[in-house]
Amino acid sequence: MTLKEILTQVQQGTLSPDAAGTMIRQDGYKEMDYAKLDTGRKARTGFAEVIYCSNKADEHLLKIFERLYHEEGEVLGTRASQSQYELVREKFPQVQYDPLSRILKIEKLDKVHEGKIAVCTAGTADIPVAEEAAQTAEYFGTHVERIYDVGVSGMHRLFSRLEVIQEANCVVAVAGMEGALASVMGGLVSRPVIAVPTSVGYGANFHGLSALLTMINSCANGIATVNIDNGYGAGYLATQINRLALGK
Amino acid sequence: MTLKEILTQVQQGTLSPDAAGTMIRQDGYKEMDYAKLDTGRKARTGFAEVIYCSNKADEHLLKIFERLYHEEGEVLGTRASQSQYELVREKFPQVQYDPLSRILKIEKLDKVHEGKIAVCTAGTADIPVAEEAAQTAEYFGTHVERIYDVGVSGMHRLFSRLEVIQEANCVVAVAGMEGALASVMGGLVSRPVIAVPTSVGYGANFHGLSALLTMINSCANGIATVNIDNGYGAGYLATQINRLALGK
Amino acid sequence: MTLKEILTQVQQGTLSPDAAGTMIRQDGYKEMDYAKLDTGRKARTGFAEVIYCSNKADEHLLKIFERLYHEEGEVLGTRASQSQYELVREKFPQVQYDPLSRILKIEKLDKVHEGKIAVCTAGTADIPVAEEAAQTAEYFGTHVERIYDVGVSGMHRLFSRLEVIQEANCVVAVAGMEGALASVMGGLVSRPVIAVPTSVGYGANFHGLSALLTMINSCANGIATVNIDNGYGAGYLATQINRLALGK
Amino acid sequence: MTLKEILTQVQQGTLSPDAAGTMIRQDGYKEMDYAKLDTGRKARTGFAEVIYCSNKADEHLLKIFERLYHEEGEVLGTRASQSQYELVREKFPQVQYDPLSRILKIEKLDKVHEGKIAVCTAGTADIPVAEEAAQTAEYFGTHVERIYDVGVSGMHRLFSRLEVIQEANCVVAVAGMEGALASVMGGLVSRPVIAVPTSVGYGANFHGLSALLTMINSCANGIATVNIDNGYGAGYLATQINRLALGK
Amino acid sequence: MTLKEILTQVQQGTLSPDAAGTMIRQDGYKEMDYAKLDTGRKARTGFAEVIYCSNKADEHLLKIFERLYHEEGEVLGTRASQSQYELVREKFPQVQYDPLSRILKIEKLDKVHEGKIAVCTAGTADIPVAEEAAQTAEYFGTHVERIYDVGVSGMHRLFSRLEVIQEANCVVAVAGMEGALASVMGGLVSRPVIAVPTSVGYGANFHGLSALLTMINSCANGIATVNIDNGYGAGYLATQINRLALGK
Amino acid sequence: MTLKEILTQVQQGTLSPDAAGTMIRQDGYKEMDYAKLDTGRKARTGFAEVIYCSNKADEHLLKIFERLYHEEGEVLGTRASQSQYELVREKFPQVQYDPLSRILKIEKLDKVHEGKIAVCTAGTADIPVAEEAAQTAEYFGTHVERIYDVGVSGMHRLFSRLEVIQEANCVVAVAGMEGALASVMGGLVSRPVIAVPTSVGYGANFHGLSALLTMINSCANGIATVNIDNGYGAGYLATQINRLALGK
Amino acid sequence: MTLKEILTQVQQGTLSPDAAGTMIRQDGYKEMDYAKLDTGRKARTGFAEVIYCSNKADEHLLKIFERLYHEEGEVLGTRASQSQYELVREKFPQVQYDPLSRILKIEKLDKVHEGKIAVCTAGTADIPVAEEAAQTAEYFGTHVERIYDVGVSGMHRLFSRLEVIQEANCVVAVAGMEGALASVMGGLVSRPVIAVPTSVGYGANFHGLSALLTMINSCANGIATVNIDNGYGAGYLATQINRLALGK
Amino acid sequence: MTLKEILTQVQQGTLSPDAAGTMIRQDGYKEMDYAKLDTGRKARTGFAEVIYCSNKADEHLLKIFERLYHEEGEVLGTRASQSQYELVREKFPQVQYDPLSRILKIEKLDKVHEGKIAVCTAGTADIPVAEEAAQTAEYFGTHVERIYDVGVSGMHRLFSRLEVIQEANCVVAVAGMEGALASVMGGLVSRPVIAVPTSVGYGANFHGLSALLTMINSCANGIATVNIDNGYGAGYLATQINRLALGK
Repeated sequence: MTLKEILTQVQQGTLSPDAAGTMIRQDGYKEMDYAKLDTGRKARTGFAEVIYCSNKADEHLLKIFERLYHEEGEVLGTRASQSQYELVREKFPQVQYDPLSRILKIEKLDKVHEGKIAVCTAGTADIPVAEEAAQTAEYFGTHVERIYDVGVSGMHRLFSRLEVIQEANCVVAVAGMEGALASVMGGLVSRPVIAVPTSVGYGANFHGLSALLTMINSCANGIATVNIDNGYGAGYLATQINRLALGK
Repeated sequence: MTLKEILTQVQQGTLSPDAAGTMIRQDGYKEMDYAKLDTGRKARTGFAEVIYCSNKADEHLLKIFERLYHEEGEVLGTRASQSQYELVREKFPQVQYDPLSRILKIEKLDKVHEGKIAVCTAGTADIPVAEEAAQTAEYFGTHVERIYDVGVSGMHRLFSRLEVIQEANCVVAVAGMEGALASVMGGLVSRPVIAVPTSVGYGANFHGLSALLTMINSCANGIATVNIDNGYGAGYLATQINRLALGK
Repeated sequence: MTLKEILTQVQQGTLSPDAAGTMIRQDGYKEMDYAKLDTGRKARTGFAEVIYCSNKADEHLLKIFERLYHEEGEVLGTRASQSQYELVREKFPQVQYDPLSRILKIEKLDKVHEGKIAVCTAGTADIPVAEEAAQTAEYFGTHVERIYDVGVSGMHRLFSRLEVIQEANCVVAVAGMEGALASVMGGLVSRPVIAVPTSVGYGANFHGLSALLTMINSCANGIATVNIDNGYGAGYLATQINRLALGK
Repeated sequence: MTLKEILTQVQQGTLSPDAAGTMIRQDGYKEMDYAKLDTGRKARTGFAEVIYCSNKADEHLLKIFERLYHEEGEVLGTRASQSQYELVREKFPQVQYDPLSRILKIEKLDKVHEGKIAVCTAGTADIPVAEEAAQTAEYFGTHVERIYDVGVSGMHRLFSRLEVIQEANCVVAVAGMEGALASVMGGLVSRPVIAVPTSVGYGANFHGLSALLTMINSCANGIATVNIDNGYGAGYLATQINRLALGK
Repeated sequence: MTLKEILTQVQQGTLSPDAAGTMIRQDGYKEMDYAKLDTGRKARTGFAEVIYCSNKADEHLLKIFERLYHEEGEVLGTRASQSQYELVREKFPQVQYDPLSRILKIEKLDKVHEGKIAVCTAGTADIPVAEEAAQTAEYFGTHVERIYDVGVSGMHRLFSRLEVIQEANCVVAVAGMEGALASVMGGLVSRPVIAVPTSVGYGANFHGLSALLTMINSCANGIATVNIDNGYGAGYLATQINRLALGK
Repeated sequence: MTLKEILTQVQQGTLSPDAAGTMIRQDGYKEMDYAKLDTGRKARTGFAEVIYCSNKADEHLLKIFERLYHEEGEVLGTRASQSQYELVREKFPQVQYDPLSRILKIEKLDKVHEGKIAVCTAGTADIPVAEEAAQTAEYFGTHVERIYDVGVSGMHRLFSRLEVIQEANCVVAVAGMEGALASVMGGLVSRPVIAVPTSVGYGANFHGLSALLTMINSCANGIATVNIDNGYGAGYLATQINRLALGK
Repeated sequence: MTLKEILTQVQQGTLSPDAAGTMIRQDGYKEMDYAKLDTGRKARTGFAEVIYCSNKADEHLLKIFERLYHEEGEVLGTRASQSQYELVREKFPQVQYDPLSRILKIEKLDKVHEGKIAVCTAGTADIPVAEEAAQTAEYFGTHVERIYDVGVSGMHRLFSRLEVIQEANCVVAVAGMEGALASVMGGLVSRPVIAVPTSVGYGANFHGLSALLTMINSCANGIATVNIDNGYGAGYLATQINRLALGK
Repeated sequence: MTLKEILTQVQQGTLSPDAAGTMIRQDGYKEMDYAKLDTGRKARTGFAEVIYCSNKADEHLLKIFERLYHEEGEVLGTRASQSQYELVREKFPQVQYDPLSRILKIEKLDKVHEGKIAVCTAGTADIPVAEEAAQTAEYFGTHVERIYDVGVSGMHRLFSRLEVIQEANCVVAVAGMEGALASVMGGLVSRPVIAVPTSVGYGANFHGLSALLTMINSCANGIATVNIDNGYGAGYLATQINRLALGK
């Protein structure tokens, strides 16, 4: 119920002020003692809640997984470990795990992937983060083109795939080390570029800080940046943009 | 001409290999000795080139302004000073200057503003950056809703304008100090949020670093971040997203 | 009106759902076009809104000052410049300005100062920040003991005033350079210590970062830290604590 | 004995100058060769000494534990490992260990918990730090309300528990990632907010630095910050504030 | 084929525009699904592609190794682990591995080493990085003089080898801790000095940042710096300079 | 005299041990009370000493300028101000000053410029640093190609000049903001690339730190980096490399 | 009086407990309302108090200067401005000011300078900091050898003065940029080296941070570091060491 | 031989110029292929060379240990691991290892410890670093007073030992967390204080950076700082100072 509907029921006497107060305050989440599942999120944002598995206690992970599966009929977990996969598989034998992207999921069959985004990487070492982005976007119904290993030390590799990239509604540029890929992309496409710095590199890379600063300071236009290694965030945002292009 | 068209003319003998080589390499910019104007940018990205006025030499600024005006019939300059305004005004009396956003422009009349984006600020001190974003987006044909001074220390101010914000195709969240506005926005809307950290604050704010880190680390989804005080970049990216929503 | 009162009036038919919705969303602030004054703040937090004058446009400062004076009968402005003082004095001849703390205020007469807090500094250069803390606390009705220049390079100076410090409900420890005063205080008193790092120092002090890190890492208990040079924040928080001790 | 009492006894001839000098210098701690237990701390600050177990040598931990148990009849250890628990349990079978908060303690029975503080977290991953805060406060006699998983990406979860939070004498806001919870709290309550940044997060979070800077720069009032993951410090300070509210 | 050759064939009708377009875009790399081998690199830069082994998946490493061996008849891998060595050895029994420099290679016999570069270290702990530089340069045909353990805390050690150093076409100065070796070298030789900071050290060394800053800020002339521990980059660049001196 | 020559004269009795000791220690500089001019530098390194004018006291600047002019017949000063130019011009009317590069010099006529280096910039704002590099290299006898405003946001501008760049013995890549130009260069040329980060930019650029980190972490080969804005250092090092290519 | 003397008088009845308590607590400083002059410092540490003039209010500076002159018959002020000199000169015509070191002092005649310390700089730009060190040491009675402009880019300049340096009881090494001088010194002398980083430099020097890290991480022994530009601290510490060598 | 002696022999014909040149360049170290032992160090600095064992290869460690034992009859190794101890013990059964300080040594019997230094720690966790300092100083012949666990959170513990501290020729203050101990010491003693920051702490301590900055910025006089956890450096420097006090 919207706020207006609640207030109208109070006016009509079909809802008491106390109950309304409770509804205004509590609508939209399930109390689970240790956690508050945000089950109203899909209505509010168009995306169901997702599980960030990293460091979740086993018992908590299982209960949250179960609850979300019950609510949505599918579940996406990110940053899952092999042992978490094995834990969940005991209860949900149909669960799928990809050790590269570390995504753990049960996904509805026959999901349609619409529109188009391009997920690009500078090197092969950036692929795990790119896959987190790509599979997140696919889970949320987006069609993804993967264009990997097109970093700036060999620009001709990028140019040979440029037409595919230029047709996408949104480009996700994933790069570690100095992260120059995002700037180059920004100069070549007319659509938004989401830059994802990765922690790939060593020395003065400082675990991704160098790539992050590169992307934030880009001289090219139409670029915004997410956290280091945050493939999930990029896939989510690219989906939002792709949906707008689809008129959703 | 596209690459294919050039190659076809070579095949047909209407273009020599040398001329074609030159065209493939040089198409799309004007050599101005000290600068290379990227006049092919509009065709490539959908946006004409813009002048970043800060620290431009007077002579350079005037010539670039003149050239772009000649090419496009309108010009947008950012980070312009009062004295640069006076300089340009001598030659272009119709030029407009806004000391708050520091935007210097000649704009075509009867420009249509379509779609909708929301530009929000946490405090009044963030307004100059927000205006740079808003006026950039308007220059590129976007309809802008301004919602200022809705920071998290008084959340009810934000909630009272929430419906307007939720209807926008893209939200620009401008905030200094701790920059928490972006995270709160991310939890409330279904459309992309472009976070703009500002250098407003003092002490451990470190000229905007604190707000930048907050926004990059946001626990909310659908947020990407541009450079500190980069209103122009946010207005540009918001326009790209708004155009997608308009089917452009 | 509380949420419950609003809902009860809706139930009783004395308030329409639309009006109630507006009230729930908008209660407590005044729209001033460029700013949203949080006039409900005093009811919500027990403290009237205060003006952070730094970089406020003249016109904005005057209007906000006027509005708050109208609402509260007194106004506190922090980080005000001499020229802002002269601006406000034209309209409010009774306004007072202290160039040391940079506080600009009109204060009600016969204000009672209750309880006790101690504001201490390591050196004389920290006094401007300490005065911002002390005068803020006094404005909000707190009795303040000032104990200045008692830094750790001459501990006997501190010990000679220790009894006064130990009787306070809250100690504000203001120090730049290495900021060791807060740790020493924490080991000597039973009440909360609010540590205020200042930007006093040079070199590897990095504009207060050194003192901030010292205070955050203190080995002593009962210490919490505010931003560099944030005397206002310390005076506000000390007042909250002092009020609790007074049973308010 | 106070300094005055010691001096009076010297005057009366019941204490020699040498003995008095020793007392003035040595009163209040026990020499243990490698450590100096601060057994006078309770009289001086109202809190018995606590053991920070991290990296303590086994032999040292056991002896300090034993000594404090002898002095106080109860002991609180923080940051204890499972193996330290097993070590202590051999000698003190009644010792209790909580692997979540890593608190190791023997606590007197029938302890009264008075007043009220609220310990809140942004996410479930922040709970270990929150429990260190909550159990520390409880050990020192404070009544604690736990309100977990109310982060800003789903504000309605926080609002549904707001009345409980607003009744507390002090709010402990525990958050990692961008740490925006503290700012939101500061705008909603009239009592002091102790902000605890946690190291939860990844990438540009830099092990809690991002949350720390957010909290230090908060635009809301009445907030002070402790070290990253310092639940103990927050629980201690919240107890000091709660005791003031109880007139202690 | 060069661009001109391609265009001439189009003109002559021996190449279709479509095929030419594909060649212009794709010439010079091999698509391997997950990676794009830059086999045109040797023609373009004079150096064959090299494998950065760190974190490469076993399957990827083997395939890339095989492909490069097929193309070049020799392969250089850097940052290889013992287990990667064992993996590759199964297929290429002739592969060589140096656990100090972590270089894994198959090298053509009877390679000539020309010119001269000097690779110097401050201490013995810097030798692994120095060996990566030296062996990389040797692989690319450079003659290398190794001068190790000549740091500034005992300058006479350096002076005794100065004539050898001064005869080199390029000096690689490898140093951790405070990295002063590069500055001293810069004042003593007339040829370029490539400074390589290492992560050797502890405390405020911050994993090589201290040495990096020292080298970047050197008061001596003729010094440029590569990434922390980047022996490979230094050996590559020294080879480029040595080749110029050889008239190549 | 070399060490060997000195020792031989001692052996032959034509030089006393005391005089020899003094020569071994003092050869090669002129004591000027406050400074020690390194007049032996040209013999040792092939480059005469240069004056870093920034913050030099007027009296010192004049004396050092005079002395070097006396020794070499020409002088190069960097980072000179307009007022320093006017000061020197009073005594040396033939002195030349370029306000863009801030170079102040008297240069011998008919100097030959040999070999070839390319000095490239990403934007027009980087030109002052590029000119310091170019004019330094020219002063030391190097032929310089200037290729300005070829940054990565419009890659076609760079490609159109690529042949000139590829023919140079050394490429100096000057870029601020995110500094991606150096990486792109590294992938396109076979000669050494000297990367010069500039302080051009704002926000998270942190006065050139972002560009510096980009360049240090470059994924391309054959790149080394000098200090932020250090055009002089790049011009010096490029000259050293160019001389090697010329067989000098 | 020592503590023992006070207690003995209490025992003997010649001192009341109250008076004794006051003496124990207050001995050794003069209350000046805004400051607490530490006039007991000379007895406690062997050095009279010194005035850090930077940012002192005029009125405060004059009063403290007067008081110290009254107590000691001489005064040393550091970091004084020209206008502070003029202010003090009105009242004390005999005051001396050195604009290079910014030292403002009245010094007793016929002061004896004993022992020997060496104050060395890397460049001429480091001389102001070196003079602050040297003149501070001289004020406290130390004989100082000045050895300036002996930085590592021309090591022979340093070696020619080595015997003087090796005879000093303590060496003060003052250097900016990369600060390598301290490490070189540490390897050449048997006495303590006090390293003083200066803010001389630009770019990645970060206002002296680079030199500070170099000195802290030195691979040479017998080096300790003071704050950036802290000549006073170095002169003070060198005097302490020199006095020990003199048997004082 | 000194330089003068060498030159005199050349003059007298008892030494050839070539042999003299070699001596001037090579005197004072032993070439060991991978390392250059600085066996002349004792004559030059008064201290024999010491082994920094961390990460030394087994073979290198054994050979260097053997060589130094042969030269000096005793050896001091720092940062040794248990397994390195076992390795060395096989060859030198008399070797001693202290797992707390990680010092591995063979020490001459009946060594005299002269003078006095005080080594103090803030907490028990700082003892390993303090022991490295103390045992280093003892190895070099210094008498050491250990005063541990006297941190500023319980100042009375420090005051009870103050007389011992004040009698020392040099005070080593070892502290982690916020490192305030050094400042307090500086205000209480007349002799040099060597501050040693330790990495003890967590969160915003940043592995000792907080304590390092505190000590570098100390408001007290007579303090200089060594690297984080550098007990060896402090013990060495304290010995140098103690020797001066002994007239050595």
